[in-house]
Amino acid sequence: MRIVTYGAACSLDGFIAGPGAEMDWLHFSKDVEALIAAYWKTIDVVLMGRKTWSHAAEQGGYGAASSGKMKTYVFSRTMNQNPAPGVELVTTDAGDFVTTLKRRKGRGICVMGGGELARSLFQAGVIDEVGLNIHPVLLGAGVPLFPEIGRRVNLELLESRTLDGGCVLANYRVRL
Amino acid sequence: MRIVTYGAACSLDGFIAGPGAEMDWLHFSKDVEALIAAYWKTIDVVLMGRKTWSHAAEQGGYGAASSGKMKTYVFSRTMNQNPAPGVELVTTDAGDFVTTLKRRKGRGICVMGGGELARSLFQAGVIDEVGLNIHPVLLGAGVPLFPEIGRRVNLELLESRTLDGGCVLANYRVRL
Repeated sequence: MRIVTYGAACSLDGFIAGPGAEMDWLHFSKDVEALIAAYWKTIDVVLMGRKTWSHAAEQGGYGAASSGKMKTYVFSRTMNQNPAPGVELVTTDAGDFVTTLKRRKGRGICVMGGGELARSLFQAGVIDEVGLNIHPVLLGAGVPLFPEIGRRVNLELLESRTLDGGCVLANYRVRL
Repeated sequence: MRIVTYGAACSLDGFIAGPGAEMDWLHFSKDVEALIAAYWKTIDVVLMGRKTWSHAAEQGGYGAASSGKMKTYVFSRTMNQNPAPGVELVTTDAGDFVTTLKRRKGRGICVMGGGELARSLFQAGVIDEVGLNIHPVLLGAGVPLFPEIGRRVNLELLESRTLDGGCVLANYRVRL
């Protein structure tokens, strides 16, 4: 079964972007580049919600995620066609779709962006791992990393260590 | 100047208690006992809001915090008398009160509980350090660790390490 990971860089108060979608607080370093490069080799599917897709498209795409090397699915109830070449629109239930996708052969699956999609997938119980890069800042408001899921999810800490710039890496496995 | 610390055990999704005030997810260990005992020796004042006080009183108090060994201040706009012997009600502006308190001689000052008081003190810029014990669980809803402060607060990571039970200790200094 393929592993579905929900990963993000976040502020200590749990936002993935500021109130005006600011991401200027993100700290890039060789530590982070190496982590992302290693993780990227383990996946071949990226999932994102409409808002994350729109934001990514405005910013010029998610690199490989929109280059065709990676299969990208965008979940939306309001879009009516594939938003870009190699990017497939999914309008059916996200939990059911990912449950089926996990059973197919392939590498890992990455859930990008916070909000509604992450909530749906946590509620459906299809997320296997959570990986955070916790930045040393309180944003005070913004786009939440964990929208209220409405149920408790127990985790097992797999790894935690300090990264460059006072960031804290924390990787977890979702416990059944 | 005395150091004001906002510290808490929290879930990975940033709650200090569940939606029904549940705290059954807290993991106690010798690690945590040692940390609390060492920290307790550095402070002589505890600050809490009315809700935290009420919850603590229902639970039989906060140990030393309500035993008279420690000076406890409860902030409320609705209470009209000191709620217990050795516990002083503060009805004036929390930021101004703590600014004055910090200038007096004494040990460190501990801010307990989330919510309104923490928000007021972050907004007033009187919190010097943040210490978290991040537990491996998503509570999904509950009492927020960081109510939306409405402004950005930059932090400096002082220490991070793994504690027993998959908990992650993360201590920060507030940067001016």
